[in-house]
Amino acid sequence: MKTVQEISEFVGGALRGDRALVIRGVASLERAGAGTLAYAEEKYMDRIAASGASCVLVSSGEFPGRTVIVVENPRVAFARVAQWMFPRELPSPGIHPTAIVDPGARIGDGVAIGAWTLVESGARVGRRTVLYPGCYVGKGCRVGDDCVLFPRVVLYPDTDVGDRVTIHAGVVIGSDGFGFVFDGARQVKIPQVGRAIIASDVEIGANTCVDRGALDQTVVGEGVKIDNLCQIGHNVRIGEHSTLSAQTGIAGSASIGRRATIAGQVGVGDYCTIEDRAVVGAHCGVLSRKRVPAGSVYWGTPARPIKDVKIQNAHLSRLPKLAAEVKRLREEIDALRARLGSDDPGRA
Amino acid sequence: MKTVQEISEFVGGALRGDRALVIRGVASLERAGAGTLAYAEEKYMDRIAASGASCVLVSSGEFPGRTVIVVENPRVAFARVAQWMFPRELPSPGIHPTAIVDPGARIGDGVAIGAWTLVESGARVGRRTVLYPGCYVGKGCRVGDDCVLFPRVVLYPDTDVGDRVTIHAGVVIGSDGFGFVFDGARQVKIPQVGRAIIASDVEIGANTCVDRGALDQTVVGEGVKIDNLCQIGHNVRIGEHSTLSAQTGIAGSASIGRRATIAGQVGVGDYCTIEDRAVVGAHCGVLSRKRVPAGSVYWGTPARPIKDVKIQNAHLSRLPKLAAEVKRLREEIDALRARLGSDDPGRA
Amino acid sequence: MKTVQEISEFVGGALRGDRALVIRGVASLERAGAGTLAYAEEKYMDRIAASGASCVLVSSGEFPGRTVIVVENPRVAFARVAQWMFPRELPSPGIHPTAIVDPGARIGDGVAIGAWTLVESGARVGRRTVLYPGCYVGKGCRVGDDCVLFPRVVLYPDTDVGDRVTIHAGVVIGSDGFGFVFDGARQVKIPQVGRAIIASDVEIGANTCVDRGALDQTVVGEGVKIDNLCQIGHNVRIGEHSTLSAQTGIAGSASIGRRATIAGQVGVGDYCTIEDRAVVGAHCGVLSRKRVPAGSVYWGTPARPIKDVKIQNAHLSRLPKLAAEVKRLREEIDALRARLGSDDPGRA
Repeated sequence: MKTVQEISEFVGGALRGDRALVIRGVASLERAGAGTLAYAEEKYMDRIAASGASCVLVSSGEFPGRTVIVVENPRVAFARVAQWMFPRELPSPGIHPTAIVDPGARIGDGVAIGAWTLVESGARVGRRTVLYPGCYVGKGCRVGDDCVLFPRVVLYPDTDVGDRVTIHAGVVIGSDGFGFVFDGARQVKIPQVGRAIIASDVEIGANTCVDRGALDQTVVGEGVKIDNLCQIGHNVRIGEHSTLSAQTGIAGSASIGRRATIAGQVGVGDYCTIEDRAVVGAHCGVLSRKRVPAGSVYWGTPARPIKDVKIQNAHLSRLPKLAAEVKRLREEIDALRARLGSDDPGRA
Repeated sequence: MKTVQEISEFVGGALRGDRALVIRGVASLERAGAGTLAYAEEKYMDRIAASGASCVLVSSGEFPGRTVIVVENPRVAFARVAQWMFPRELPSPGIHPTAIVDPGARIGDGVAIGAWTLVESGARVGRRTVLYPGCYVGKGCRVGDDCVLFPRVVLYPDTDVGDRVTIHAGVVIGSDGFGFVFDGARQVKIPQVGRAIIASDVEIGANTCVDRGALDQTVVGEGVKIDNLCQIGHNVRIGEHSTLSAQTGIAGSASIGRRATIAGQVGVGDYCTIEDRAVVGAHCGVLSRKRVPAGSVYWGTPARPIKDVKIQNAHLSRLPKLAAEVKRLREEIDALRARLGSDDPGRA
Repeated sequence: MKTVQEISEFVGGALRGDRALVIRGVASLERAGAGTLAYAEEKYMDRIAASGASCVLVSSGEFPGRTVIVVENPRVAFARVAQWMFPRELPSPGIHPTAIVDPGARIGDGVAIGAWTLVESGARVGRRTVLYPGCYVGKGCRVGDDCVLFPRVVLYPDTDVGDRVTIHAGVVIGSDGFGFVFDGARQVKIPQVGRAIIASDVEIGANTCVDRGALDQTVVGEGVKIDNLCQIGHNVRIGEHSTLSAQTGIAGSASIGRRATIAGQVGVGDYCTIEDRAVVGAHCGVLSRKRVPAGSVYWGTPARPIKDVKIQNAHLSRLPKLAAEVKRLREEIDALRARLGSDDPGRA
């Protein structure tokens, strides 16, 4: 519970209206009721008047009779206030009596280890990190400070996780990459002896898989956010602060730059290079070894610059008309030729 | 073990043939042997003669020398008989000594809680519900009566599950939605403070993920069936009795109507509306904010009415021929113009 | 640690160079340092000179001053050496005190069963098999000799797993197939009473799901390799030594032949037949009931022979030009007709 005054100070905004109002919750502009804080993006400012929110974060404008806080980026400010007012409720520090921590593991101060979680020998768990029930931290793993591993996360041996990393339930990190070679009779496994390295401030969604490197390493860079049910193949490298939406798969040895945006259900082929700040649209497929230039927006399968895809799609939708026009042209030419008589070198 | 007579009475059908025959199993028409019950859909009725089944559920027709039960919908009747004769074998009621039920949780009569399952404080589990080993029921969750949660299901705090819900192994419900906003330097998390609500009679396939709402709720409606490895984003609403096949993803804030059929590997973009009884074909992608009208059949990426897609695909396959025809037209016109001499306003 | 001499003898190769060199690790050609073994495929042989590897497996050629071992297939030989030198470190035999093995289960010699793993009644686990922590082996399951089940694998009742099978963390085998029939008011479940059968020498990637048969069986053939997050529907049959890359889904009753190669994010429709040695390219969709002929290479959605898809894609990219040419033809014909006067039967 905070007053509008306190919230305004927290976000460093300019408060207009009733500074004593008490905020108890956050809500979307449409569903906000009394006692809630909402935010309005530029294009939705006309919805403020009808909103039931007690206070709205805005970037500019006059809203007579309403209490607003003017900030540069209302959505960022809203996220920060929500984090501040509603921190995730985490288990208290302590090791549950049913958890098993190998004597050869090192556990930092303030760590919470839930029931039936196993920390194998040689593993290190940093300060204040929370391991929910049923997690498995393999031999030689390192998990940094202030991480949260939700129930049933599995870290294969030698996985390295930075600080402030959040890993959702069912995630598997460090499993074998898919490396087989056919010897004429059967698939021979190429041992996967690299590691998986997750840098600090990463968040990984439920049931996502990150394979260990084959010979080298798989690296998920600082601040990267990966959604649910994604697949990150062996030797992949993902640059800082990139985002990958749900069910996206990055094949082996592909490289994603910094601040790239990979939408949902995307397939990135092996040895691809997605450069910094590139955007790859939903449900599309980037061919193996393709390069997506920095800052570009790609879409379609095979993925190409989005403006080319849009032009092509427009032509595609006119294709039946084009075929009809060609048919008419054929008829007219035949008619013209008939009028001009039989001397006809134009047709075989 | 039932007699054909008993089965006929159970389904309310018209029995023709030997009513004393004993049925011990169910099988497909092709693989059925003595002592089994099979069913034949209208189009496969000619296969009845060759089937080894002792009794066949049919919708009409004469099958001299065979024992059949005539019902309105043979497949529905078959499903009902199979459920009746072969109910799922479930663990006996009781709480396993290794399970942990918080004193602040409420457990109904006849519940079975398997080994290493944790029910957190404030959670309620309804009557006769089965929690297989290794499940995690977070704080404040509510699970209704007669549910079955297979091993390793994770319910994040405050998840609400109705009655007669079946959740397969590895499912994660109530994990955070994918909400981040870039502040110019890094991705700032938008706290996901809504809930996930699963209505009664839902079934959810293995390793599927259903995110909690961001600010509002994610709602899976009554009777909905979701296959394995699906992703249901935050704030999604799925109407009653819809089905979603495997590996389909529904992005945030999309809305699916009632009795919709979403095939496998479909991507539904954020803020889409799939209306009642619409069908979205396999492997296709519905663009963000798109509306798929009630009762329509959509396919392709971007998804469009299936008849348009089929026409376009037909034109596409004829495109090489069309290009060749245009080339011939060009030659003929050039020839015509040559015959007519140099006075040529038609070409720049 | 092995000498080059020992390695050469192990692979049956022809050693050229310093046979006393000691190999401590394996690496990619690019990142190899002193004491490592690498391999070079035919097309990358020019990279050998610059490599830091102490010894390189090659198929032919002269490399003065370098130590090489000549073998028929360097990649296969490399895989074999890596397996030999770096066998997976597995837990020692024994049943962890927290594991629960039903008295009615049968456990072979030399088995390792980790913490909080449950083996239900009637299940059999073969010799030297390793069940990592948190696995669930349902009633009546059979797991063969020398298998490895990583943490949190779930085998539903009656699942059959051969010998030398590796199953990665989070995999679910034998869950219900997706079988429902709409009775006019709601979806009626068709009980899934078949089984899932995994033959010997199979490897299954993390969080993949294999459904049990509906009435018959789901069969994954000998030596098949399945990557992470794949979905194998009910009644599917996959022939020997085929490979399926990540996030691929095989719908119910589809049949994959032997040595087929199914790339990542592929969707194979129900009742499809992918014949022996066929290749289905990444991210593509094979229509229901389609047949992909033996040895063919298919791609695109709907999947077709790759050469047809490539020709079509080339025409597609020229479509804007084609449309412009048709427009010019129209203008020229109109001009020709204008020159020829009003007598015009060609146009309606």
